[in-house]
Amino acid sequence: MKILFLNGPNLNLLGSREPEVYGRLSLAEIEAEVRKRAAERGVEVEFAQSNSEGVLVDLIQQARGRFDVIVFNPAGYTHTSVALRDAIAACGIPAIEIHLSNIHAREPFRRESLIAPVCCGQVLGFGAGSYVLGLEAAIMVAGHNRAGN
Amino acid sequence: MKILFLNGPNLNLLGSREPEVYGRLSLAEIEAEVRKRAAERGVEVEFAQSNSEGVLVDLIQQARGRFDVIVFNPAGYTHTSVALRDAIAACGIPAIEIHLSNIHAREPFRRESLIAPVCCGQVLGFGAGSYVLGLEAAIMVAGHNRAGN
Amino acid sequence: MKILFLNGPNLNLLGSREPEVYGRLSLAEIEAEVRKRAAERGVEVEFAQSNSEGVLVDLIQQARGRFDVIVFNPAGYTHTSVALRDAIAACGIPAIEIHLSNIHAREPFRRESLIAPVCCGQVLGFGAGSYVLGLEAAIMVAGHNRAGN
Amino acid sequence: MKILFLNGPNLNLLGSREPEVYGRLSLAEIEAEVRKRAAERGVEVEFAQSNSEGVLVDLIQQARGRFDVIVFNPAGYTHTSVALRDAIAACGIPAIEIHLSNIHAREPFRRESLIAPVCCGQVLGFGAGSYVLGLEAAIMVAGHNRAGN
Amino acid sequence: MKILFLNGPNLNLLGSREPEVYGRLSLAEIEAEVRKRAAERGVEVEFAQSNSEGVLVDLIQQARGRFDVIVFNPAGYTHTSVALRDAIAACGIPAIEIHLSNIHAREPFRRESLIAPVCCGQVLGFGAGSYVLGLEAAIMVAGHNRAGN
Amino acid sequence: MKILFLNGPNLNLLGSREPEVYGRLSLAEIEAEVRKRAAERGVEVEFAQSNSEGVLVDLIQQARGRFDVIVFNPAGYTHTSVALRDAIAACGIPAIEIHLSNIHAREPFRRESLIAPVCCGQVLGFGAGSYVLGLEAAIMVAGHNRAGN
Amino acid sequence: MKILFLNGPNLNLLGSREPEVYGRLSLAEIEAEVRKRAAERGVEVEFAQSNSEGVLVDLIQQARGRFDVIVFNPAGYTHTSVALRDAIAACGIPAIEIHLSNIHAREPFRRESLIAPVCCGQVLGFGAGSYVLGLEAAIMVAGHNRAGN
Amino acid sequence: MKILFLNGPNLNLLGSREPEVYGRLSLAEIEAEVRKRAAERGVEVEFAQSNSEGVLVDLIQQARGRFDVIVFNPAGYTHTSVALRDAIAACGIPAIEIHLSNIHAREPFRRESLIAPVCCGQVLGFGAGSYVLGLEAAIMVAGHNRAGN
Amino acid sequence: MKILFLNGPNLNLLGSREPEVYGRLSLAEIEAEVRKRAAERGVEVEFAQSNSEGVLVDLIQQARGRFDVIVFNPAGYTHTSVALRDAIAACGIPAIEIHLSNIHAREPFRRESLIAPVCCGQVLGFGAGSYVLGLEAAIMVAGHNRAGN
Amino acid sequence: MKILFLNGPNLNLLGSREPEVYGRLSLAEIEAEVRKRAAERGVEVEFAQSNSEGVLVDLIQQARGRFDVIVFNPAGYTHTSVALRDAIAACGIPAIEIHLSNIHAREPFRRESLIAPVCCGQVLGFGAGSYVLGLEAAIMVAGHNRAGN
Amino acid sequence: MKILFLNGPNLNLLGSREPEVYGRLSLAEIEAEVRKRAAERGVEVEFAQSNSEGVLVDLIQQARGRFDVIVFNPAGYTHTSVALRDAIAACGIPAIEIHLSNIHAREPFRRESLIAPVCCGQVLGFGAGSYVLGLEAAIMVAGHNRAGN
Amino acid sequence: MKILFLNGPNLNLLGSREPEVYGRLSLAEIEAEVRKRAAERGVEVEFAQSNSEGVLVDLIQQARGRFDVIVFNPAGYTHTSVALRDAIAACGIPAIEIHLSNIHAREPFRRESLIAPVCCGQVLGFGAGSYVLGLEAAIMVAGHNRAGN
Repeated sequence: MKILFLNGPNLNLLGSREPEVYGRLSLAEIEAEVRKRAAERGVEVEFAQSNSEGVLVDLIQQARGRFDVIVFNPAGYTHTSVALRDAIAACGIPAIEIHLSNIHAREPFRRESLIAPVCCGQVLGFGAGSYVLGLEAAIMVAGHNRAGN
Repeated sequence: MKILFLNGPNLNLLGSREPEVYGRLSLAEIEAEVRKRAAERGVEVEFAQSNSEGVLVDLIQQARGRFDVIVFNPAGYTHTSVALRDAIAACGIPAIEIHLSNIHAREPFRRESLIAPVCCGQVLGFGAGSYVLGLEAAIMVAGHNRAGN
Repeated sequence: MKILFLNGPNLNLLGSREPEVYGRLSLAEIEAEVRKRAAERGVEVEFAQSNSEGVLVDLIQQARGRFDVIVFNPAGYTHTSVALRDAIAACGIPAIEIHLSNIHAREPFRRESLIAPVCCGQVLGFGAGSYVLGLEAAIMVAGHNRAGN
Repeated sequence: MKILFLNGPNLNLLGSREPEVYGRLSLAEIEAEVRKRAAERGVEVEFAQSNSEGVLVDLIQQARGRFDVIVFNPAGYTHTSVALRDAIAACGIPAIEIHLSNIHAREPFRRESLIAPVCCGQVLGFGAGSYVLGLEAAIMVAGHNRAGN
Repeated sequence: MKILFLNGPNLNLLGSREPEVYGRLSLAEIEAEVRKRAAERGVEVEFAQSNSEGVLVDLIQQARGRFDVIVFNPAGYTHTSVALRDAIAACGIPAIEIHLSNIHAREPFRRESLIAPVCCGQVLGFGAGSYVLGLEAAIMVAGHNRAGN
Repeated sequence: MKILFLNGPNLNLLGSREPEVYGRLSLAEIEAEVRKRAAERGVEVEFAQSNSEGVLVDLIQQARGRFDVIVFNPAGYTHTSVALRDAIAACGIPAIEIHLSNIHAREPFRRESLIAPVCCGQVLGFGAGSYVLGLEAAIMVAGHNRAGN
Repeated sequence: MKILFLNGPNLNLLGSREPEVYGRLSLAEIEAEVRKRAAERGVEVEFAQSNSEGVLVDLIQQARGRFDVIVFNPAGYTHTSVALRDAIAACGIPAIEIHLSNIHAREPFRRESLIAPVCCGQVLGFGAGSYVLGLEAAIMVAGHNRAGN
Repeated sequence: MKILFLNGPNLNLLGSREPEVYGRLSLAEIEAEVRKRAAERGVEVEFAQSNSEGVLVDLIQQARGRFDVIVFNPAGYTHTSVALRDAIAACGIPAIEIHLSNIHAREPFRRESLIAPVCCGQVLGFGAGSYVLGLEAAIMVAGHNRAGN
Repeated sequence: MKILFLNGPNLNLLGSREPEVYGRLSLAEIEAEVRKRAAERGVEVEFAQSNSEGVLVDLIQQARGRFDVIVFNPAGYTHTSVALRDAIAACGIPAIEIHLSNIHAREPFRRESLIAPVCCGQVLGFGAGSYVLGLEAAIMVAGHNRAGN
Repeated sequence: MKILFLNGPNLNLLGSREPEVYGRLSLAEIEAEVRKRAAERGVEVEFAQSNSEGVLVDLIQQARGRFDVIVFNPAGYTHTSVALRDAIAACGIPAIEIHLSNIHAREPFRRESLIAPVCCGQVLGFGAGSYVLGLEAAIMVAGHNRAGN
Repeated sequence: MKILFLNGPNLNLLGSREPEVYGRLSLAEIEAEVRKRAAERGVEVEFAQSNSEGVLVDLIQQARGRFDVIVFNPAGYTHTSVALRDAIAACGIPAIEIHLSNIHAREPFRRESLIAPVCCGQVLGFGAGSYVLGLEAAIMVAGHNRAGN
Repeated sequence: MKILFLNGPNLNLLGSREPEVYGRLSLAEIEAEVRKRAAERGVEVEFAQSNSEGVLVDLIQQARGRFDVIVFNPAGYTHTSVALRDAIAACGIPAIEIHLSNIHAREPFRRESLIAPVCCGQVLGFGAGSYVLGLEAAIMVAGHNRAGN
């Protein structure tokens, strides 16, 4: 079982960027934590990040046949990208949308996700914990997917 | 550490109600699964369900001083209840909103939650798995809460 | 064949409440008239009323296996209750929404029903006559349902 | 007592047009059924149909002095015709709006009726049964009208 | 002259609930203050509180014939309850809507009251003082009502 | 100079239709009054009325080369007809929109005219007087048109 | 019979201000033309203009008992002044709203008038001719008013 | 293979009507061009035009069994006619919506088509060329339809 | 303790202006009543009124250092004046918004106040009584202000 | 004559991506078909595709001086890209927007195109056929452009 | 070259009014700074301020023939005054809108300016610096204007 | 002091792109002018441009520690990019948004900037002058920033 953690724009700044909103861990530290847990659970994970919508579309397309689930933090593209929505729908891999912050407690435009309707589910508001819960959710979804349905 | 799983209207019908949307497990079966996991994690859980908005407000108020986190599936009251939002805000206990289905892939009115802005975070779309992830999220939040913040 | 007439908030005041809008018959008098007609048509009817959204959800749930059709006047909850909509959808019994007054000739917020999309049909604007027509409609729907659908 | 059943655009295709939405009876078969019932109830009925908004306005105007009630299925003009609304209001005859399908369970634009606010009431969602219930409703309304009010 | 002070959901938590928004007095302390003032003014007051919309509807219905004015703080139901609006309109007793906080300086959804259009007037933003002013307003309204109009 | 007075749906009922809104004069009586004034002013007038949008489009098209100005009371089609707007724009004859009633003091949907933006101007709210003022306005517009501009 | 022509902000610039929109006549020239016509019709007219909303409110209040009709071009205050709407409603004198340009063929915000609903009627789009037609309309309205109404 | 080119209101004026928007060819000239091309492609075409919504509904209904595809320019009815939408859906013949002008570069209300959702596709903005492309599209659709699907 | 009662446009007409909406007392009579009560309470009051938004801004600015509280009936400027909102916020004196009528039972545009969010609270719907209650509220607010907060 | 076929995000997946929506042909197969037709028509075509909005902007800019027409399927960027709209407007080459599916029969957000208002026209809903029709349209537009206009 | 700095309501309070939003300099101090810079640049400046919309309209009208550019801080009238917009458009002098604060980072209603569309440009968010930049902008605009364009 | 001038999509075409909207200077010519002025003011400037949202995000991130202020013309991304908004907020460098044209005098969608709320201020409408004023504004902001705040 192989899971892609895909990260959208500005997530490479984690830890130094508005830490009161996004927490103090860097993306590398989150990755380390997730890797450790994944190892315990016997699943493989890969992390990717890009600030470019087009590159994220490429990465989703290239995941076909290589990953069982995508855990996706689309960050700023959550609210504006039909291209990413279409890529998720097109790639045929189950996806889980995650967010560090509680997007419902911020600016109104952050409450609407174009990506969520084509994902299995959403986990949001737990800081780095959203990644750990995303890993658990991905294992559930992949298990469920393999079992049939 | 003690966690309240609070369930809104019609969730007592789980298993028999529109299983293609809500899954085939009854609320009792979900509770059993969550209890098993909670025992492994060394935390106590309690389950409550009501079809009445007022009773749910009462249950949230009575949770003060007795629970560390509330994992709340407000079901049909998610989109219409300011009273429950106020109860969550008033009780001072961190809360996590969960849903069985992906509310963003259903009718438009289900996309807006009045409760989410006063919760820590949200987990949705994983069927009974949303409860299990809600348990994990609650343990994170409670741990974090105790550690200070 | 057994039909439940379910009545929402303030309908217990019928006859004395704004008679120029809701007519001069009490709910008991309407019930008597409907019972008489039902007897002629050889069907059984039961009347229930509650001012509480939660109790109405309970009554809908308890109707499963006991009634063939629900004739439902949700009154003030028509426009605000997702919980009742979900209860109707969950219970699996065909339902008919009725109103005493012509809700389209009143305040704009009364024109939108959250319940109607999960009912078979709607009858509104005929005062106590809406109950009598609701009975006729219920007999049609139940007959149709039994015949196969 | 004489009742006009007025039918809007495309209802002449009933039976052959999208039968999963509108049922399998032709307008002539519905008319036969309604005539039979009307005969039993001792009232006269007349059926008219047109695809033209202007002709429907003419028919409503000509109903003055000739009919006691109009049972009107405005079909596609329900949502777009102020001219028909004005004709109903102008002709002074009580009118009842009916629909074969449950317009609240279809496209959003079908939920708003420009005609309903100037009618006594509405019956919708019972297929051909909406015509039969419309007849019953018309008899109630005409009786009530004659009795005074 | 007898005045009912009716209190909606979560007001039983006053004093301990978000005191920077709602003040530091408990509902019992506010009641004591209002009772003292009412005694000075020679009017009788009664306090009731419920977290349940349905119970509040019941209380309003039961006020008929027993109270001259209702001073109503609908709290979280202010913005979502047509049932309470209908109960106020149906009971025939003049009502005054009050709020502790200035609802216009908070979240946008708190600015719209479904109850206000069927009340005589509104007093809001003065903390416990809103109850005292509500008492004065009720005395005015009741006096005016008795004098004729 | 020749002026066409074009009248939309239900205006053939003037005098007998809701006289408190539309006045007590019939269209024939208004025509007589306008003819008298037109004779005094030395201009020719013609009156036409139809309940059919399509016939009104035909009449506007046929006015080309025969009339100098159209005074148009589109009645119920004012708010819904792009076809009539296009006909006015296409025919190249200056047009003046008139209404008997003050459409801004009625239902909100009557405030928006699809026709007005392609007319020279609008006269509304003066009952039969709107036709007389429409005649005066038409003479101004035609004079102005002939003088150049 | 005495008629007040009241002119809102920037109308003192007429003739020099955007003549392609507002025409080439100055307000004084329009006044002269209206006076000439008024003399022919045996009625008295008075012209006033102010750039200040408050002064316009004053002028409307002072018109009480001195004028039979107000012909009002509220110009830029048309779309924004509740104070002027209230002044017209309060003064009890019938008012007619006029505009030089066709406000429906300009920016969308110019299409909504706060004043129109409390006036008898509206004349717009005929340049200086709107004043002449406004005079005729005022004579009609005043005659009608005197005759009873 | 037989194709109906159906033309809505004011298209009979083509060539003389606002040529800068709609081009300089008359409908007859467009028809001639389309006929020539159709002959080359070995398909039969028929042209019809009406200013009346009802007649257009009739024409669509009568096309059943006689035509393989309808190429429809609904003109002004594009944005306002549910009756035509229902007729297209009811007739069961694949339809293609065409427009001479680019409706997305004009007034906002022209951007929304009620007809398009029930058509196969849309061609717009190429003047008379939209008809030629419509012919090509119809041949594709009809071929595809015959081939199965 | 000194309190300014500031009155917006058309309030100088009180008593003669639409008495069924605004009551039969003149502003002078209301002032007399308020002065009497103020004397009993040992506080000084001053009344001012203007029809001009700019003058009202001036009066609010000049109140700095001279008054402890402003009781403000902004009348028609309630819904349209950012300038007055800014003046209240800028002057630093606590303000209370009052209205004679229940603005929530009137036209929709009267329900939104631009001023309310920068006031302490609101009293509305009690006719002249709103001024008396405004006095009581002002005494509360001023006392509270002096006591610290 | 040289035509650029520009393809937006996810179109490189054609054939394997949701074939029930987008058809079974790959982009290469569509290109082959278009090339064959272009050869018959004696025009040159070039195909480009990118998942990146910025690269698509670059490609449009580089088309200046090299292509006569752009046939553009902006896919997911249709609804969200002002940058592509500006690029089309800036490059000065006539452009034609095409879509495989009927975007008006899908999710509401797919109905609005930011690109369409700056194109000549639109072809949509014919699957791969939209490319063939786009070629024909481009030949028309280029011919027309060369001929003058 | 002569430049008018025109200041709207409450700007006379600068320095003492909400200094965390508007800064600590008084309008006189800003004027002094601007005068100094203007002297260096060899241009003449004049400052005016009024709390009255009507007086501001007057000042704009009187600027004709006396000033080359208006630098306008409309303050609270920015969002509500069509009269000022019309005055700017009517006076024919190029105008520049300035604001002390970043209006886009405040309440939503402050983001929309009715004045901006008729100005050359806008400078906002730099506190007193907005005036200095406004001076520079005015010099550019005036130079450009004189040079032709 | 070092300032980054960042330019969004299509700005590389300046001078040749719609010169009536964007002016006749190329981006290189503007850069030259800005460099000259910067030299006079003793500050360093750097210019960058990209058509890609992702590259712009990269450039903003890389500016951290290297620049004191960013002067940003986001062009087409102004209205659609949350990613750029987040990048500006995350980088911690004060930013100034500039536009060549007056975006408030163009299409409605150009009036809303997602970027502005996280910038210090905005300068727009002065063509190339907006860059010069942006330089001046940046010097102010940087000075102010260094001085403390």
